[in-house]
Amino acid sequence: MAEPSSQSTYYNEIAGASIHRLAGISDGIFAVGMTILVLTLAVPAANEVRTDSDLWKALVHLLPGVVTYFMSFLTLGIFWVGQQTQLSQVERSDRDYTWINLAFLLFVTLVPFSTALLAAFYQSRIALVEYWLNILVLGVLILAGAEYAARTHLFNEARRTIIIHAVRRRVYTAQGLYLAATVLCFVDTRLSIGLIVLIQLNYAVAPRIPFLRRL
Amino acid sequence: MAEPSSQSTYYNEIAGASIHRLAGISDGIFAVGMTILVLTLAVPAANEVRTDSDLWKALVHLLPGVVTYFMSFLTLGIFWVGQQTQLSQVERSDRDYTWINLAFLLFVTLVPFSTALLAAFYQSRIALVEYWLNILVLGVLILAGAEYAARTHLFNEARRTIIIHAVRRRVYTAQGLYLAATVLCFVDTRLSIGLIVLIQLNYAVAPRIPFLRRL
Amino acid sequence: MAEPSSQSTYYNEIAGASIHRLAGISDGIFAVGMTILVLTLAVPAANEVRTDSDLWKALVHLLPGVVTYFMSFLTLGIFWVGQQTQLSQVERSDRDYTWINLAFLLFVTLVPFSTALLAAFYQSRIALVEYWLNILVLGVLILAGAEYAARTHLFNEARRTIIIHAVRRRVYTAQGLYLAATVLCFVDTRLSIGLIVLIQLNYAVAPRIPFLRRL
Amino acid sequence: MAEPSSQSTYYNEIAGASIHRLAGISDGIFAVGMTILVLTLAVPAANEVRTDSDLWKALVHLLPGVVTYFMSFLTLGIFWVGQQTQLSQVERSDRDYTWINLAFLLFVTLVPFSTALLAAFYQSRIALVEYWLNILVLGVLILAGAEYAARTHLFNEARRTIIIHAVRRRVYTAQGLYLAATVLCFVDTRLSIGLIVLIQLNYAVAPRIPFLRRL
Repeated sequence: MAEPSSQSTYYNEIAGASIHRLAGISDGIFAVGMTILVLTLAVPAANEVRTDSDLWKALVHLLPGVVTYFMSFLTLGIFWVGQQTQLSQVERSDRDYTWINLAFLLFVTLVPFSTALLAAFYQSRIALVEYWLNILVLGVLILAGAEYAARTHLFNEARRTIIIHAVRRRVYTAQGLYLAATVLCFVDTRLSIGLIVLIQLNYAVAPRIPFLRRL
Repeated sequence: MAEPSSQSTYYNEIAGASIHRLAGISDGIFAVGMTILVLTLAVPAANEVRTDSDLWKALVHLLPGVVTYFMSFLTLGIFWVGQQTQLSQVERSDRDYTWINLAFLLFVTLVPFSTALLAAFYQSRIALVEYWLNILVLGVLILAGAEYAARTHLFNEARRTIIIHAVRRRVYTAQGLYLAATVLCFVDTRLSIGLIVLIQLNYAVAPRIPFLRRL
Repeated sequence: MAEPSSQSTYYNEIAGASIHRLAGISDGIFAVGMTILVLTLAVPAANEVRTDSDLWKALVHLLPGVVTYFMSFLTLGIFWVGQQTQLSQVERSDRDYTWINLAFLLFVTLVPFSTALLAAFYQSRIALVEYWLNILVLGVLILAGAEYAARTHLFNEARRTIIIHAVRRRVYTAQGLYLAATVLCFVDTRLSIGLIVLIQLNYAVAPRIPFLRRL
Repeated sequence: MAEPSSQSTYYNEIAGASIHRLAGISDGIFAVGMTILVLTLAVPAANEVRTDSDLWKALVHLLPGVVTYFMSFLTLGIFWVGQQTQLSQVERSDRDYTWINLAFLLFVTLVPFSTALLAAFYQSRIALVEYWLNILVLGVLILAGAEYAARTHLFNEARRTIIIHAVRRRVYTAQGLYLAATVLCFVDTRLSIGLIVLIQLNYAVAPRIPFLRRL
């Protein structure tokens, strides 16, 4: 164990092995990301507001920002639950699994930008497609994590098959729905946004409704 | 367990089950929310301040911001203690309980906005009512979490009844007081703000005072 | 246990009892506070910088901001170590101890404001005194926490006396030094800032130096 | 144990001993730092964008910001994995080890500034050298932590030698590569940036590739 290459191997073996720390930084990044979404909502400038009626109008103008903020909080909530569920099934971590999760977290930190962009340009297809790409990459990376964990036996052996099938099915269905909603931007971007909100609400709430639970 | 619907059921069973992770993201979101409240206090612009007397005047102008910052820190502290207490009594979590808590956290992230709005427009009834609505929804959702936990036996069976009664009583009393304070905005919004601060101080400090402890 | 007042008593008994959650929100608030200190350092505006020499001058102008950022990071580090040490000696928490710590954390969240104020007005006595008041209140509240814990037997009984004496001595000495440094602002505020930095460095580094270790 | 100096010694003995709290604040600071990197990407101003083509151009102008954001996320990820690995090998902490880590975290909080500076002035050697200095100090401090831990027997005794050799080798190699990339700024700063990104990607991904794994 004295020559360089095995030292390096040894380092790679012990690196990134703590599921607890991975959960810690994930909770932290999700928490900061979810909280700074609110910065999308700029408080009206005091010098432009004279009366309560002015303030009311200014707040109404914030509505697209409120909708995208709500949508992005749901998005992050869904992916947080997804990653938490996956980590709870993983019996140990390793360097590569940690980096797949860090790549996933990189796109979590991008969500506040995508949200602010969409809030400012909610009628633009470019802003909508950028938002969709963000969700797509999050889905791809959460699936990549599960596939890697399944292949390298990080999951509990007995539940491995059912977990990976459940994750695949869930990611494919969800991403299919997001894609369909995004394609509708050729009709109207607001239609896409409304549909994405409904899909997110479904994933947050619907498992209680027998029919939708099957999605 | 091979057909789709049971995979989906399986996923829903294992999803969001970690109380530890729920505590982690809650602490994170409260921590970020409580800290960015301070951004309400803008440092006076250097080019508008020539003398110590100018700086003093500029700081005095920050006073409404200081009061709302203090009030909101108390608000978040009260709800953090409330949620922490509830989670400490819950023996396991599930998907729905997690989502009720995420909905609660959504309105935690809204508090810095409501605070900045009220700091900028502390004489406006609209800003005050918006602030009150934020507190109201936080109260409703913390109660919803407790009701759900009681109904689905997430609480320790032996203490279930006493916990849910204590939470109900507490939420009803507090929300009644907030409502009364808010109604006073038809006299003067600053009266409402002062009263809300007193109510919060009561919840933070008063249990040490025998008479107020009963509230 | 069925009548209201005992429900309320029961609630107060189980509220805020988790040291783990208190540590969680403390780490979160300190982490956010320490990180947003860097926002004091505004990146020079691109349209005012044409050459590398312009950029160099702009960076030199950031120097007061760098010093206060460094000083405040040390300040927060010292109080974080202090609170961590205290919590590690506490065997359980309660509602009142939690609220003393939340009051402490309120003034932790104020540090980024005090820092930005001092960076902008480092030659103003008002800004310096405000900064000092912030440190003073942090010291008072960390001592209040220790006194409360000692009086209500939250500390390990065997080590109680030595802990409270050590904390008192430490807070009195440190606050005495901060006061002395602040009084020097009547000569020059920069002298005060320099001295506070030295005091903080002493607390961070000096225990390795036999003579200073006694402070 | 009653005289002052031993009280002080006692305090220093119990201070900063919690690895768990050190991990907590580290995860928090890394999480906030990694998330606020995204603030480097300013959403285009609504009044300057009329058409989708304007928005596209505005997004293309964000490209240097996207590259530095990506590079800094990788940088922070690499140092987070490095510190997590080191802490996982440490069997206990002490005051000095805690302060070496806090110094390390100070330069973690500086990364968002260095990133924003480089994004704004990516053709300036000064901005690049400042960025490199930030990485250099992070490397020096992570090595200092390992050297201290090895010297004071904080590591597991059996693995001590192999750990410290692995860390040294890793830090020397990485810092050598960063230095080489930085020197290339005398040709073109963009060349340096490109190379640093490649080095970071290597550390994140390459251990899977046999040849590069030896680095």
